[in-house]
Amino acid sequence: MCVLGLGLIGGSLLRAATAAGWRAYGYNRSVEGVEAARFDGFDADHSLDDVLRRAAADDALIVLAVPMPALPIMLDHVRRIAPNAPLTDVTSVKGAVLTAVRRHGLAERFVGGHPMTGTAHSGWAAGDARLFVDAPWVLSVDDDVDPSVWATVMHLALACGAFVVPARSDEHDAAAAAISHLPHLFAEALADGAGDVPLAFALAAGSFRDGTRVAATAPDLVRAMCEANAGQLLGSLDRAIATLTAARDRLADTGSVADLVESGHAARMRYDSFSRPQILTTTIGAPDWRAELAAAGRAGGVVRSALPVLGSRG
Amino acid sequence: MCVLGLGLIGGSLLRAATAAGWRAYGYNRSVEGVEAARFDGFDADHSLDDVLRRAAADDALIVLAVPMPALPIMLDHVRRIAPNAPLTDVTSVKGAVLTAVRRHGLAERFVGGHPMTGTAHSGWAAGDARLFVDAPWVLSVDDDVDPSVWATVMHLALACGAFVVPARSDEHDAAAAAISHLPHLFAEALADGAGDVPLAFALAAGSFRDGTRVAATAPDLVRAMCEANAGQLLGSLDRAIATLTAARDRLADTGSVADLVESGHAARMRYDSFSRPQILTTTIGAPDWRAELAAAGRAGGVVRSALPVLGSRG
Repeated sequence: MCVLGLGLIGGSLLRAATAAGWRAYGYNRSVEGVEAARFDGFDADHSLDDVLRRAAADDALIVLAVPMPALPIMLDHVRRIAPNAPLTDVTSVKGAVLTAVRRHGLAERFVGGHPMTGTAHSGWAAGDARLFVDAPWVLSVDDDVDPSVWATVMHLALACGAFVVPARSDEHDAAAAAISHLPHLFAEALADGAGDVPLAFALAAGSFRDGTRVAATAPDLVRAMCEANAGQLLGSLDRAIATLTAARDRLADTGSVADLVESGHAARMRYDSFSRPQILTTTIGAPDWRAELAAAGRAGGVVRSALPVLGSRG
Repeated sequence: MCVLGLGLIGGSLLRAATAAGWRAYGYNRSVEGVEAARFDGFDADHSLDDVLRRAAADDALIVLAVPMPALPIMLDHVRRIAPNAPLTDVTSVKGAVLTAVRRHGLAERFVGGHPMTGTAHSGWAAGDARLFVDAPWVLSVDDDVDPSVWATVMHLALACGAFVVPARSDEHDAAAAAISHLPHLFAEALADGAGDVPLAFALAAGSFRDGTRVAATAPDLVRAMCEANAGQLLGSLDRAIATLTAARDRLADTGSVADLVESGHAARMRYDSFSRPQILTTTIGAPDWRAELAAAGRAGGVVRSALPVLGSRG
């Protein structure tokens, strides 16, 4: 396993895969990051081409663990040196990554991934071999994904202690807009609105503190994820603005906010009682395996132990 | 001190005032509530008229601690039996209460109040003598409030361990809309929106959990506070919808959410570093004392030890 980028996620992945017995090595741009990783006993290098030549020779799984803006440069090098190696990523937006991978002609052996873990700190030093334990790790089941690459990434995620949520890239991005990117913009709007009201900060308590907590996130991080998912986020924003406008009009006309309050409360109660059934019966590579996994994931299903692969013993 | 209603707030107030050495007694509609309070050693009665006759004889401060819908009936009885007693309330909306009090001809000796404490549980049994410790207790400084009644309620709030935030009723309600009622509607809208997105609950984590937490509040409670403050809430909703629409248009046109993210982050940082200076120099009843306290409260100022009262020895 070859990880490109040794920040919080990539560095944690190098640690977790090594601890799980995988032969794992990594690339990092900064000499400091590489030296810190080596000092901690890991196999790291700051020559991208050397690392990729090694991955090509090993047919190792390459994991793209760099921020979105650095992705095209990484993909240029991968195409030149290791175009046939299995490829995945750990980025929080899946559609934009898939588009970039296709543009570089690397889609055939690519399976998009997104381990859903914290991003409050960054850099090699912030990494943790246990970062992925019990975390959802989304794996894309788009129409053409390769069964053997999918199985390889599934094994990596499970080896790191995560469970796998199969999802199509577009559905992942729509969900991420609804449960992460829109909540961030709502938090910014609440904080911004209170900033103009005399007394607001003086009286603010629980509901404001919770509702604006993620507005404390560094603006660059919020922008990066929202802007990379602009298409889905626009849809979420349009629906949310329509919901709030309908509630506003009803409050003005009838004095009641019953509709919004009751549907919001019911949705939150459904969320609180939401459970994750285990996916056990799908064989990777069997007819319709991608659609079957997408449907199971959509219903909340997760993979906690390795699924069988068609034509493989085990 | 005579408290009408022995639920969470009224029951806690009877306990806290008694513990602080005030002669305190209360009324509750249900025989069970009264018996529970008496069993715990407190002075409680379920005859409203008897309690009010006693308060009139004592010139005791009457505290309205019933939900908004029960307020007009309470005020009918107060007007009939104790029209000259000092009067306050503990309701989360100040403008609507002031209107009801004026309609009953009781404004002269009324000072609106709002101890900002939790409401997750209810009833006598949920009460706690320490509920008000270190909590903000808003006291209205509208144009005509009586200095001696204001001082009496201030002493009660301080005796209960709270600090006093002086505010005009309209400014309190605008702030409550921005920091409580709007956050509740935002939480409902986020939960509601995710409820329609496949996968959303499966992938939801921190930002969604925090952003929708208060959507778990009982719908009746959310409706009661939002609908009683409809005027100010409409203004807050209009501004929030305009903010989100501008962000949406900018994202569609330029691909950027920088404006909203940067102003929201800046506002949240100001909130995190907001501090509460102590109000020390105002004399209650001196010229312009109400405007002076309103300005100090608007700047975040709070009263932590009793202010002097003009013509009183202190």
